Amino acid sequence: MKDLKNFIETNKEKFLEDLFELIRIPSISSKESHKDDMYKAANWIKDYLIKDGADMAEVLDTEGHPVVFGEKIIDPSLPTIMVYGHYDVQPVEPLDLWESEPFEPEIRDGKIYARGADDDKGQMFMHFKAFEYLVKTDQLPCNVKFMIEGEEEIGSPSLEKFCNDNKKKLEADVILVSDTTMLAPDIPSITTGLRGLSFCEVEVTGPNRDLHSGLFGGAIANPANVLCKMIASLTDEKGRITVKGFYDDVEVVSKEEREDMARAPFDLAAYKKAVDVDEVDGEDGYSSMERVGIRPSLDVNGIWGGYTEEGAKTVLPSKAHAKISMRLVPHQDSKKITELFIKHFESIAPPYVKVKAKVLHGGEGYVSPTDTIEYQAASKAFEEIYGVKPIPYRSGGSIPIISLFEKVLGIKSILMGFGLESDAIHSPNENYPLEQFYNGIETIPYFYKYYTEMKK
Amino acid sequence: MKDLKNFIETNKEKFLEDLFELIRIPSISSKESHKDDMYKAANWIKDYLIKDGADMAEVLDTEGHPVVFGEKIIDPSLPTIMVYGHYDVQPVEPLDLWESEPFEPEIRDGKIYARGADDDKGQMFMHFKAFEYLVKTDQLPCNVKFMIEGEEEIGSPSLEKFCNDNKKKLEADVILVSDTTMLAPDIPSITTGLRGLSFCEVEVTGPNRDLHSGLFGGAIANPANVLCKMIASLTDEKGRITVKGFYDDVEVVSKEEREDMARAPFDLAAYKKAVDVDEVDGEDGYSSMERVGIRPSLDVNGIWGGYTEEGAKTVLPSKAHAKISMRLVPHQDSKKITELFIKHFESIAPPYVKVKAKVLHGGEGYVSPTDTIEYQAASKAFEEIYGVKPIPYRSGGSIPIISLFEKVLGIKSILMGFGLESDAIHSPNENYPLEQFYNGIETIPYFYKYYTEMKK
Repeated sequence: MKDLKNFIETNKEKFLEDLFELIRIPSISSKESHKDDMYKAANWIKDYLIKDGADMAEVLDTEGHPVVFGEKIIDPSLPTIMVYGHYDVQPVEPLDLWESEPFEPEIRDGKIYARGADDDKGQMFMHFKAFEYLVKTDQLPCNVKFMIEGEEEIGSPSLEKFCNDNKKKLEADVILVSDTTMLAPDIPSITTGLRGLSFCEVEVTGPNRDLHSGLFGGAIANPANVLCKMIASLTDEKGRITVKGFYDDVEVVSKEEREDMARAPFDLAAYKKAVDVDEVDGEDGYSSMERVGIRPSLDVNGIWGGYTEEGAKTVLPSKAHAKISMRLVPHQDSKKITELFIKHFESIAPPYVKVKAKVLHGGEGYVSPTDTIEYQAASKAFEEIYGVKPIPYRSGGSIPIISLFEKVLGIKSILMGFGLESDAIHSPNENYPLEQFYNGIETIPYFYKYYTEMKK
Repeated sequence: MKDLKNFIETNKEKFLEDLFELIRIPSISSKESHKDDMYKAANWIKDYLIKDGADMAEVLDTEGHPVVFGEKIIDPSLPTIMVYGHYDVQPVEPLDLWESEPFEPEIRDGKIYARGADDDKGQMFMHFKAFEYLVKTDQLPCNVKFMIEGEEEIGSPSLEKFCNDNKKKLEADVILVSDTTMLAPDIPSITTGLRGLSFCEVEVTGPNRDLHSGLFGGAIANPANVLCKMIASLTDEKGRITVKGFYDDVEVVSKEEREDMARAPFDLAAYKKAVDVDEVDGEDGYSSMERVGIRPSLDVNGIWGGYTEEGAKTVLPSKAHAKISMRLVPHQDSKKITELFIKHFESIAPPYVKVKAKVLHGGEGYVSPTDTIEYQAASKAFEEIYGVKPIPYRSGGSIPIISLFEKVLGIKSILMGFGLESDAIHSPNENYPLEQFYNGIETIPYFYKYYTEMKK
């Protein structure tokens, strides 16, 4: 790759300047109040793709936030790589835990600190620069398309329809995604499995108004206590989820594959230290890596009810709420699990409360083989920069659209992630190390090269 | 009582005008931001007592919010009644459930709607007017003192020291309090038992920051799930509290007394309908009235953790919190129970979380006999206005200072409450029926009369 290192070295500052412009747009997809910011971010990307060398780029409306599509077709007979990314970001609460403004990026200790620094503005932006390099140095070996959406963090509710409506436009040989992590800065990895997601919100109602806990406490059921009992019962003492039928379709991973996985480097002491816990917890009979890689989980993502401000208020609340998500493994159907969960939750409600449960969003898991052209091309690209073969890795995260692309567009995806677990995505002080950022820009062009060569 | 009905009839509007002035001062004791309002309310009362006929009144500083003291001594050889009340009020959240502004009183359907309308500004104000009547018509039969504090809703943390420091000033024969309810508008009652309170706040910490629930879910314990399990385990399937030693000192109420209590009118269907629940719940083997009257309880008054805003954020939170209160019955020591609770809560924490538990406040229960002069005087006063003897009643609420007065000042209290359960104290749309308000003003002077006569 002629002049690749030089291209990066020369433009380092400019890359950051441009990325920071995009990060400063607070494109939080889950909040209605940021509707305008979604268009602002989409238009920014459209203009930027043109500047970087795309033939065309456009902002396409959906039923929700818009999708940016762009392309450079140099020869229809050549392979086409489609880059997927998302410009939307997670909310930033709790704000008081941020050490700098979430939407005012700051470099500290060689890392970019900001919401979206990694997920996914930072990782997506590496593709813009790799593309620019290939175009401007006349080394682009294939056709390129970009599909950049604005609803990934809320479960991509409009994307299935968008793909169905634009099948022709979205034709490609492979979808290239950087929205995952590698195992360590010196251990590249390719994500070969993702968990699906079923995400619900529940409401438990006791009395029709907040009551005085002295005058009624002990005689009228407290919905906050009841919600705790209900949530407590959702997992048993072995760490298994008690929702009826929950495990029916769970993929049974072979002994051989589990042994393979166990060869990935994993330091339990370092893992515990990184998040500062004395012990790990999870389903009996599985390692920590297996618990996130091949086993489903159930987490309370938020819980609230009663008086939560400063000081004392002895209220017996009328309502208590929780957001509960389940991460699913291959073969578990998100819609089916959501139905099972809601049915189960309603069935365990005692007669002295009323419960409501609703879907927030969901998506399917994904598992991909390692003997494909795209896997081999990605592997060689990583090896080129890092000097070692990447490890195939089953991540616990969810990118539901990966299985959607296969289903609707018939296109496989390859997940070349450059994030690190310490990047605190979805959390305060999200960050992205500059080293990962520049290494990503350097690695990606090799994927283009090897993929095109192997595909021919 | 000469001209009493006429006094009330003539001044009805003026009473409300004055009370509303006091209600408009948002004297929320639990919030630092309302510090100035506490002094504003205290000074308002001081001036008002003088206008109503007190010899002197003063605002006395404490370590927290000030106490208003006032008195009229007509003859040191006569008995002295000390009126206790509190000018502080509960917070007003959740604000969106109020049908009118909490601090802008409004009359609807014959009720005053406002924070403090009943608890305790409205009930306290009846005493000011009864006092004014007795003074201005020259019928005051005894000496009167007023002790009006500003920390009742936060557990009266400064009052014990205040009483100890002012024993001489606070000498009296009986303390008269209107801060409780009667069983129904036509069934007067005298509260002969109150529950104590132990109120704690707990914090459960898992990882040192919010984590991505996909990348970590199932492998790192979620403190919100853990808190639910811990809270769930605090009560068993019989509705009994599992804190070790919790029931050791609980007063065993005799079969005879329980039979007496069961004669109080109670309509379970109406009780359930009033708060709109299909079933009641509580400790096995006790009626609803017994569950609040003679048995302790444990309630989550507030719970929070993780992402609780609109939409979806798949976070594995770092921390989860709850405010948990226990209502105690006579002989249970609040400090001891608090210690037992904190010890128990820490002992049930699994090794993968850290827990902290702290005291918010506490106070002792109270039980008073019915054969005292003050009970008999109050009984006759109620009978005078309502035409029926009041029912002795054990309330589930807590006014910890009642036992404090007995301990520090050696003075018994008599609880002549005019509130109703439907007054929604501590809740949105707190209200106080005008009928209760005016009946209270009419009843109280008779207590002065009968108490003085019987005491002589």
